[in-house]
Amino acid sequence: MTRLLAIYNPPADPAKFDAHYHGTHLPLARTIPGLRGMRISASPPVALAGTAPYLVAELDFDSMAAFQAALASPEGQATSADVANYAQAGVSLLAYETKED
Amino acid sequence: MTRLLAIYNPPADPAKFDAHYHGTHLPLARTIPGLRGMRISASPPVALAGTAPYLVAELDFDSMAAFQAALASPEGQATSADVANYAQAGVSLLAYETKED
Repeated sequence: MTRLLAIYNPPADPAKFDAHYHGTHLPLARTIPGLRGMRISASPPVALAGTAPYLVAELDFDSMAAFQAALASPEGQATSADVANYAQAGVSLLAYETKED
Repeated sequence: MTRLLAIYNPPADPAKFDAHYHGTHLPLARTIPGLRGMRISASPPVALAGTAPYLVAELDFDSMAAFQAALASPEGQATSADVANYAQAGVSLLAYETKED
C-alpha cells in the first residue's frame, strides 16, 4: 500500500482552519480517484518527541503508481491546489510505500 | 484506533541506522503488549511539501488507553529507551486517535 501523510502545523485560527478543512477540503479529497481509505486525527496529536502538529490525515492508495495517477488527476490537482487556502501555517506531505512488519 | 507515528530524520550513517533499527529496535518493538499492527516505509518517503524524513513507522493500538499502557510496560520502556541508540539525527513521535473519514 502507498500512504500519503498530511501533517499540518497549528493554524493561527483553528476555527477557520476547521471550517475550510471539513467544509471544503475533505469533500474535495473524497473525490480523488483511487483513494482507498482516509483517516484523520480525531483531536490534535500528542508529540512524545518533536513538535506537535494540529492535524494528521492518512490517505491510502494501492501503489505508488496509483498515487501518482491520483495526484495528476483533475480531482487530485483541485485537492492539492486547495491546500494553500487553509494551510498557511505549513504542512508536510509525505508519500511512501508501506511494508507490514 | 490509536496510531503512533515515528518519523525519523535522515541519519548521518544510514547503514548504521538500518543495522540497529532492523536488528535491535524492531525486535524490541514487536514485544510491546497491545501492539495490533506495525508498518514501516519500504524506502525513504518522498516529501511533496516539507522535509523528507528517512523512515516512517506506523504502530497501531486499540485505544489511547491501550497505547499509554503499552508505553508504560517494561517492553514499551525498553523500546523507548533504545531510540537514543540510533536516532541521533532526531525523530518525531506523534500519537493520535484516528477516525475514518
